[in-house]
Amino acid sequence: MPQISTKGKLMPASPIRKLVPFAEEAKRKGRKVYHLNIGQPDIPTPEVAMEAIRNITLKVIEYSHSAGNESYRRKLAGYYRKVGINIDYTQLMITTGGSEAILFALMTCFNPGEEIIISEPFYANYNGFATAAGVKVKPITATIDNGFALPPIDEFEKRIGPATKGIIICSPNNPTGYLYSKEELMQLRDIIKKHDLYLFSDEVYREFCYDGLKHYSVMFLEGVDEHVVMLDSVSKRYSSCGVRIGALVTRNRTILETVLKFAQARLSPPSLGQIAGEAAVDTPPEYFKKVYIEYIERRNYMVHTLNKMKGVICPMPKGAFYTITHLPVDDTDKFCQWLLSDFECNNATVMMAPGSGFYATPGLGKQEVRIAYVLKIEDLKISLKCLEEGLKAYPGRTR
Amino acid sequence: MPQISTKGKLMPASPIRKLVPFAEEAKRKGRKVYHLNIGQPDIPTPEVAMEAIRNITLKVIEYSHSAGNESYRRKLAGYYRKVGINIDYTQLMITTGGSEAILFALMTCFNPGEEIIISEPFYANYNGFATAAGVKVKPITATIDNGFALPPIDEFEKRIGPATKGIIICSPNNPTGYLYSKEELMQLRDIIKKHDLYLFSDEVYREFCYDGLKHYSVMFLEGVDEHVVMLDSVSKRYSSCGVRIGALVTRNRTILETVLKFAQARLSPPSLGQIAGEAAVDTPPEYFKKVYIEYIERRNYMVHTLNKMKGVICPMPKGAFYTITHLPVDDTDKFCQWLLSDFECNNATVMMAPGSGFYATPGLGKQEVRIAYVLKIEDLKISLKCLEEGLKAYPGRTR
Repeated sequence: MPQISTKGKLMPASPIRKLVPFAEEAKRKGRKVYHLNIGQPDIPTPEVAMEAIRNITLKVIEYSHSAGNESYRRKLAGYYRKVGINIDYTQLMITTGGSEAILFALMTCFNPGEEIIISEPFYANYNGFATAAGVKVKPITATIDNGFALPPIDEFEKRIGPATKGIIICSPNNPTGYLYSKEELMQLRDIIKKHDLYLFSDEVYREFCYDGLKHYSVMFLEGVDEHVVMLDSVSKRYSSCGVRIGALVTRNRTILETVLKFAQARLSPPSLGQIAGEAAVDTPPEYFKKVYIEYIERRNYMVHTLNKMKGVICPMPKGAFYTITHLPVDDTDKFCQWLLSDFECNNATVMMAPGSGFYATPGLGKQEVRIAYVLKIEDLKISLKCLEEGLKAYPGRTR
Repeated sequence: MPQISTKGKLMPASPIRKLVPFAEEAKRKGRKVYHLNIGQPDIPTPEVAMEAIRNITLKVIEYSHSAGNESYRRKLAGYYRKVGINIDYTQLMITTGGSEAILFALMTCFNPGEEIIISEPFYANYNGFATAAGVKVKPITATIDNGFALPPIDEFEKRIGPATKGIIICSPNNPTGYLYSKEELMQLRDIIKKHDLYLFSDEVYREFCYDGLKHYSVMFLEGVDEHVVMLDSVSKRYSSCGVRIGALVTRNRTILETVLKFAQARLSPPSLGQIAGEAAVDTPPEYFKKVYIEYIERRNYMVHTLNKMKGVICPMPKGAFYTITHLPVDDTDKFCQWLLSDFECNNATVMMAPGSGFYATPGLGKQEVRIAYVLKIEDLKISLKCLEEGLKAYPGRTR
C-alpha cells in the first residue's frame, strides 16, 4: 500500500481524541457524562437567525460568491464599524468557519518551514493548521501565576529568527480566558513593525469580555495595516458553531487577493450558514446582555468553587468561556481518562481537556486541564462536584 | 511589508476570473449575460431537502461530529450500497463540499513535491488544491478526436517516476462530459497496482450518465482497496451547490484515520448542509427522471446546434453537463472577453470558460471553451445564438 504523507503522520490528533472512546464507554454503562471539554455553548442560537433559516424561499441552494454574499459582507462590515473597526466590505472575506480563515491566512503568508510564534497554552487547532500548511510553531510559555498574560516582549525578540514570519494571538483567549490589554498589543505592534512580521489575531470571543474590560482589537493598531490579519467567526458570538461561518479581515490588499484564490478553489462558503450569519447581525442587544449575565454567573461560580478545592488553582478569566486550571494530580491525561473509565459520582462523571494538548513544548500542561464553562449552572454544579470527588479518590493525586 | 508565500503567488486564479469584471461591465450597460461558464444548475433543489431546512426545530446550531453526523453517514452509506458500492458508514467521512474531500485526500496522501497524474483538460480546481498541498501536476493530454477518452495507458506509464504518488480522474468528466468505461478503469487499476499508486476518483456527476450508459465506480475495482479514494458531493446530484456537503470514501483505514485528523482541526462540516444532505437521500426517483430528461434535451439541442456552426466541433457528452468545444478562433481567452466587452446580440451576450484554464500544459486549449449546459432550453437557445453571431463577427476568427 502507498505511504501516506509525512504531514498526515505529523498532524496532531484532537487533545481529547484519546478520551472519546472512554466517554462513549461510560455512556454505554448508563453514566451521565458532563462535557466541560469542548467550547460548544448550550446558549440558544438567536431567534432571528433560526427564523431566517426556517423562512427560506430559495428554490435552488446555489454557490455564493467565493468571498461570500456581498449583502452579508456589507452587513458584517457594518457590525465591525459598530465595534470601532473601521473597514469596508472589500476588506473582509467570508470563510467556512474561523477555521478556514486561519488555514487561508497561514497558506497565504507562510512558506513551508517558516515559523510562527505563539504564546502557549494555545488553541490546539493552531497546531493542526500549522502542520497542514507546513508552518513551524515556536512556543513561548505563559504562566498561570499572572493568569497567562502576554509573556515579556523580550521573550518574543529572542525567538525571532530569519525564518520567523509572524505571531498569532487569541484575545479573549481560548484556552486561558486571558484578555490582552491595549498595552500588550502596542508592544506586539512595535515588534512586528521592527521585524517586519505578520500579526494574526483570533478575536472570535470579542463579545465575551468581563468586569467592564473593553476588547482591544488588532485592527485598532496604527501604522501596521499591511501586517495585521484578524480572524473571526460567528460560532461563539451567536452560539451557532455548526453554521461554519467565519471571516478574515485585513487592510492588506495582497493578502485579500491571494486568499481569494484559495477561496475560489473551494468555490464558496456555506450558503445556508451565510443566511443565518447575515440575519444574526440583527440580534437584539438584550440577547447579549442575557448571555453576558449567564456567563458571568457561571464563571464566578466555577472560579470560586475550583479555588476552594485543595491544591486547585483557577485564575479569574477576563473573557471567553474557558479556564486553564491547575490540578493536584500526576498527569491530567491519565486523570481525565480515569474520570471516564474508573470513576462515577451518583452515576455521573465529567470530561475535561487535558492541558498537554494546548502546549507545543513537550511535557508541559501535565497538571492542567482546560475547562469550558458552557453548561448551565445546575450542570456546572454537578460537574464540579464530580471533579472534586474525583480528585479525592484519584490514586495519582500529588498532594 | 512582509512577503506572501510562494504558494499564494503560484495559486492559480479561477479560469474565468479575468472575465468577471467584463461580465459586470456588460451587466452595468444593461446587457443580459447568459452564464454557460459555471456548473451552477438552474434545477430546483429537491423539495424534501428544502423542507428539512424549513422545518428545523433545533435550538442551538451545534458542531457536528468531525466526520459528519452518524445518522447522515449511515444514510449515505445506504445510498452508496443502492448504487452498488459496498461500504459501511465508517468508510466514509462527510466533508465541506467535494472541494474539501479533494484537499484532504491530497494532504493525506502526498508530500510536497510529489506528483499526481491527470488527464487534461481537467477540472481547474485540481490545480488549486494541488498547489495548496504542494503537489506537482503531471498532465497527459486527451484529445477531442475521441471525445477526450482516457489517453493510452502507456502514456501514464511514461510519466510514472519515483515522485509519482497517484492519479486522479473525474467520471463523468468535468469539463469534457466523457464517461470512463469499465475497461478504461481496469487499465488504471492495473497500473496503480503495478506501481503502488493511489487512484482518486471524483464521481460527483454519477447520476448524470446518458444514452443508457452505466456509471462504473472505482469502488467496484477489486484488489485495490488500499489504493482507491472516491470523492463525492451532493452539489450536483441534488442541485444544492451552496450547502457545501461532500464525502470522502475509501476502504483504506490509514487514510480514514489521517483524514479525520485534518477534519478535527476544522471541527465539523456544516450542520445545516448536513440536514439538507441527509434529507436529500430520500429524493424520489421521479426527480431524477425529470432532471435526466431535462439534461438530455439540453445536451442534444446544444450538441446539434454547435456542430451545425461552421468550424465548431462539439463531441457528444456521455455524462455530466459540460462540453469542451472547439471554436474557430485565434484565442478563446480573447474571444470570451470580446463577447462580454465588444459584442451584443439583441442586447444579450454569453459567458463561457476559456479552455486554457483546464490545461496544465501551457498553450493548450486556446481554441476550446467549456460550456456548461445548465440553463433551460429557451435560455440555451438565446445563448447559442449569441455564440453563433459572435463567431461571425469576431475579428480573430480563424476560418
